[in-house]
Amino acid sequence: METQVILDTLWVVLAAMLVFFMNLGFAMVESGFARAKNCVNILSKNFIVFAVSSLGFLILGWGLMFGDGNGLIGLKGLFMAGGADNSPATGDAYQGVYSAISWAGIPFWAKFFFQLVFCGTAATIVSGAVAERIKYISFIVFSFFLTLLVYPIVGHWIWGGGFLSELGMLDFAGGTVVHSVGGWAALSGVMILGPRVGKYTKDGKIHPIPGHNMSLATIGAFVLWLGWFGFNPGSTMAATPESITHILMTTNTAGVVAILTATATSWIVIGKPDLGMSINGLLAGLVAITPSCAFVSVTSSLIIGAVAGVAVVFAVIMFDRLRLDDPVGALAVHLVNGVLGTIGVGLFAQDGIGGISTPNGLFFGGGLGLLGAQLIGVICAGAFTFAASTVLWLAIKHTIGIRVSLKEEIEGLDLGEHGNQAYPEFVSHKIPYALIVKDINTVSVGAGASESIKASKSPEQVKI
Amino acid sequence: METQVILDTLWVVLAAMLVFFMNLGFAMVESGFARAKNCVNILSKNFIVFAVSSLGFLILGWGLMFGDGNGLIGLKGLFMAGGADNSPATGDAYQGVYSAISWAGIPFWAKFFFQLVFCGTAATIVSGAVAERIKYISFIVFSFFLTLLVYPIVGHWIWGGGFLSELGMLDFAGGTVVHSVGGWAALSGVMILGPRVGKYTKDGKIHPIPGHNMSLATIGAFVLWLGWFGFNPGSTMAATPESITHILMTTNTAGVVAILTATATSWIVIGKPDLGMSINGLLAGLVAITPSCAFVSVTSSLIIGAVAGVAVVFAVIMFDRLRLDDPVGALAVHLVNGVLGTIGVGLFAQDGIGGISTPNGLFFGGGLGLLGAQLIGVICAGAFTFAASTVLWLAIKHTIGIRVSLKEEIEGLDLGEHGNQAYPEFVSHKIPYALIVKDINTVSVGAGASESIKASKSPEQVKI
Amino acid sequence: METQVILDTLWVVLAAMLVFFMNLGFAMVESGFARAKNCVNILSKNFIVFAVSSLGFLILGWGLMFGDGNGLIGLKGLFMAGGADNSPATGDAYQGVYSAISWAGIPFWAKFFFQLVFCGTAATIVSGAVAERIKYISFIVFSFFLTLLVYPIVGHWIWGGGFLSELGMLDFAGGTVVHSVGGWAALSGVMILGPRVGKYTKDGKIHPIPGHNMSLATIGAFVLWLGWFGFNPGSTMAATPESITHILMTTNTAGVVAILTATATSWIVIGKPDLGMSINGLLAGLVAITPSCAFVSVTSSLIIGAVAGVAVVFAVIMFDRLRLDDPVGALAVHLVNGVLGTIGVGLFAQDGIGGISTPNGLFFGGGLGLLGAQLIGVICAGAFTFAASTVLWLAIKHTIGIRVSLKEEIEGLDLGEHGNQAYPEFVSHKIPYALIVKDINTVSVGAGASESIKASKSPEQVKI
Repeated sequence: METQVILDTLWVVLAAMLVFFMNLGFAMVESGFARAKNCVNILSKNFIVFAVSSLGFLILGWGLMFGDGNGLIGLKGLFMAGGADNSPATGDAYQGVYSAISWAGIPFWAKFFFQLVFCGTAATIVSGAVAERIKYISFIVFSFFLTLLVYPIVGHWIWGGGFLSELGMLDFAGGTVVHSVGGWAALSGVMILGPRVGKYTKDGKIHPIPGHNMSLATIGAFVLWLGWFGFNPGSTMAATPESITHILMTTNTAGVVAILTATATSWIVIGKPDLGMSINGLLAGLVAITPSCAFVSVTSSLIIGAVAGVAVVFAVIMFDRLRLDDPVGALAVHLVNGVLGTIGVGLFAQDGIGGISTPNGLFFGGGLGLLGAQLIGVICAGAFTFAASTVLWLAIKHTIGIRVSLKEEIEGLDLGEHGNQAYPEFVSHKIPYALIVKDINTVSVGAGASESIKASKSPEQVKI
Repeated sequence: METQVILDTLWVVLAAMLVFFMNLGFAMVESGFARAKNCVNILSKNFIVFAVSSLGFLILGWGLMFGDGNGLIGLKGLFMAGGADNSPATGDAYQGVYSAISWAGIPFWAKFFFQLVFCGTAATIVSGAVAERIKYISFIVFSFFLTLLVYPIVGHWIWGGGFLSELGMLDFAGGTVVHSVGGWAALSGVMILGPRVGKYTKDGKIHPIPGHNMSLATIGAFVLWLGWFGFNPGSTMAATPESITHILMTTNTAGVVAILTATATSWIVIGKPDLGMSINGLLAGLVAITPSCAFVSVTSSLIIGAVAGVAVVFAVIMFDRLRLDDPVGALAVHLVNGVLGTIGVGLFAQDGIGGISTPNGLFFGGGLGLLGAQLIGVICAGAFTFAASTVLWLAIKHTIGIRVSLKEEIEGLDLGEHGNQAYPEFVSHKIPYALIVKDINTVSVGAGASESIKASKSPEQVKI
Repeated sequence: METQVILDTLWVVLAAMLVFFMNLGFAMVESGFARAKNCVNILSKNFIVFAVSSLGFLILGWGLMFGDGNGLIGLKGLFMAGGADNSPATGDAYQGVYSAISWAGIPFWAKFFFQLVFCGTAATIVSGAVAERIKYISFIVFSFFLTLLVYPIVGHWIWGGGFLSELGMLDFAGGTVVHSVGGWAALSGVMILGPRVGKYTKDGKIHPIPGHNMSLATIGAFVLWLGWFGFNPGSTMAATPESITHILMTTNTAGVVAILTATATSWIVIGKPDLGMSINGLLAGLVAITPSCAFVSVTSSLIIGAVAGVAVVFAVIMFDRLRLDDPVGALAVHLVNGVLGTIGVGLFAQDGIGGISTPNGLFFGGGLGLLGAQLIGVICAGAFTFAASTVLWLAIKHTIGIRVSLKEEIEGLDLGEHGNQAYPEFVSHKIPYALIVKDINTVSVGAGASESIKASKSPEQVKI
């Protein structure tokens, strides 16, 4: 076999493994940022979501995304990726997007698995935002349809030869395809679910609910950081030394600068260098550089990361003021920075910078052409994903239900949904349900909550 | 140097590192599934076991397994892998097994290290099953002899050119060589040790003992999942794109389907989607596909995974009914699915499916030939490993002893064996020894326990 | 592009990712070995340190280290690694050191990122030794200057064509450049900071302060072990099968033997096989083999590892007797074994053993030549790093301050420095500040502490 094919395959397979490992990263960041009483539930969601995604993408997703078709959907290889093992019948559409990429040579399952782990990432982003009140089965069903239908269709538009790629929109490693798709789906879920009991009170107060385990969150952050070295440099899908190493540098640089600016911003705004903000700063920087990592200089990646780190802190505060309760900051990280980063391509792109030929962005003499394509891409992907997700969430809400009972939410989803406890031997400050329920009419719950609860004057008494 | 040799070496080395990392996976799954009072002991066992295995396999194991010899044992390279650094004198026997494999070209230490990490895996499987009552030194001694003698001999039969490979038995990545060898050794240990105090009571009740930390168990599960992408695809021991990517897909597919069927089965049978069962489902699927991953289609891997996920739930229940106390489910995962998966090769194998030439299995027109060889292999490996392990365990029991004292078991092995505590600052629900001992004559202990304890009528009083 | 360049690049990039992942390893070992009340602070330090290092090394470090210059410092590529993206203008000096290495062909950012992760490791070593009493901002400032100036200058002497490399000193993967530089910087910090409150008392007693989470420490140990397979074999910086696999074996062998000898030594000396000592044994063995991994036989690596495992236990005891309070044993691991290992090159080196041509060491007929060069290297690197670090630490102490307040130290740095708690829901044995402060005049604090505390007769009453 030709040596370049072997090199390309090894690189794609190893990068895919790193991206797969991000499932652990998300599981740890999300469970660490949530409360102990919901820990098993979050771990379970993050554990099963890649299983569900694997099926959804195999059964239909791959074909919709990469099968040759029209500008809106793929039409080949629809079921079981074409039904025939090892049949490289689909996926060739991909190669046209970036001149440096020609993955026609590597085995079909390498392409499939690499794309699968990206699809799985989009689904796992949703998990954190809807945590601590969603029913386990409802999340599973949503994830299945997201990876079966929604993600692949947007993916086709941008990566599968669809109308946005025809338009010239660029999203190198999935700032829009993965992160903002996950983010829009999460936003829709957050709005329909409503906030957690006790988070916002009638008198306008916002009650911070600290995560139960910052060690887990930090494990998750480092694992995601490592995984991103597969996510971005791996998206060359070919063993091209110059591009891979350029992308590795822009990715790391944006991430580290965002850690520093997010930490500094939280130090100034909140008064202390909050570790949660440092972690979300890293993730914000990594998301923001994702769509442009191959197209911008290392110096530009410094600027992109710096902006992302500041943006994420204010975005977290903004979503709280909007009473959109996102326990882990997934909207601030993935949605906001997925959008900002995709627009950033239109500003900072430089032809040939990472060994890849592209139009120049606005700041490098390219005018408004690329920026316009990016904006159209952001809007189309956002509108479709938000609308389709809303249909899915509402269908779930009105069939199997979407939110656990109030009793279960207060006692913790671990017992109610799974019959498990994450740490059964350790004594916690948790207050028994009987004591809480006495005051539960003091708490306001968002419009989406399935229980109606009267609100009164002393919400602070409710300990969560 | 020839390019293919470099490619093969890089692939083998990187895959070996992933398999090595499974040591962390086992450490976390096992400690997470056990109680906090025994956590340091389990971590210590899983930490030292690869050190012990490295010595055992270097001193004698490699030569017994891969040294050219007769049908039963290897006879070359016996001590320190032949004594000479960098001398590729042994291991050539391996290449004959699968036509796609010719690892003669890669450096000797690449072969050695790759095989070492598999040997270490077999030893670490035992650790979980005998947890929470075995003496630290006794586990160390057993592991040393398992990797010095037992594992290499079975390995020689199947992978080293021995009589089972002559017979045509196929075990691509070690469903029998690694997983069922570990499982049989564990079964023997479980029987000789007896159950943990308080697990089974005279009146026939089974007391579930929940794990202390599901976050750790989930970390372990993801790390093992990642490691399996080295374990199975790496067993090509050559950078062969078609085979590697095919195996990656069958491996992942079996694993994810088994998560889903195990979760569904536990939802139906136990009433809740138990996270521990989801995790053991994944591992069961990965074990079951291990021997056949290169020989079966992706569709077959779906079926193999689905069966494994159901089987593991019922196997856990069965071992409990048999009063074989396995704190982490290692027997249900590795023994049961190692056996089932090895038999599965005889049913599902398809010539040429992953780019590797094999006989067809029963379901693909191959008749009973391959199935028969698989059954003989399962029986021979099982009989020898169980017998040899029993001799080892009994020798240990009657010399240095095998089980900690009752007082130590109740207070926790961490203090007794190591003088450490895993989480000294956190308040736990643990009941002091003095309070427990008052009722200790109420608890029945298995035949293997070294202490004799009178049983009486109120076992439920014993909190563990 | 030439195939060898692609192979070399992939190897360097993947090895660099493994070394990067060691940041997680250090974070977990250090936080696990410290108390829960300081956990967020340690996680924060270990999380931000790679961000700080990335900037320091990019802004000036790379050029000082690898820019062609004189025997003391590099003078090219000083700012932003030369300012031009993708400009391979510097770093060629490296290739002359080992005949097997010629990294001129791989892209510039591959070289840069690989060297960056080593620089980051040196900074993270300091973190553990100064834990539980240093101010967050002070650690950040120190790390910045360490990676901007100190590390690169020593690195230039040994790896950048400076005077020690001219002298023939050998340090294959950074026993001196990384580990002892980190160790000397840490020693200086420990002396200037003084010990933690309650560690040593006036009456001469040493109070052990156990770590809060041995599960985290074990996660860290395995991650570091994995990372070292990038650290040492990756330091070939070329895809050379024979060297890579030889180094992989010497690295693993030294590590596992050191686990065994450290465990045995602690069993004999302390009375129990302490898990913390087993972990520090591993790390000691890995540090000790780092400078010589490519130059010594597997048999020699057995001896080096055995010595390291014994040495680390006695070194931990020694530093405690010297009242140098190092919460995680970083001095015993990195400083002591970095020095011992570098000297070991002069004893055990064998020409051609791992495919690399070197002078022979004393035990293999090479006389005292190489040993002399190693000793000079150890002394020069130590003297400069210790002096420069002391200047930095003192400058920090007398400007922004170096140590948190007594109240903050007792209550925990997490609340004081970060406003976070690592595990807010779990009940701990922590005693409120008000109760402690009553007895605080009973505790002696080292000369470096910024608070003066009167000592009296009942120090045991202070629970920390």
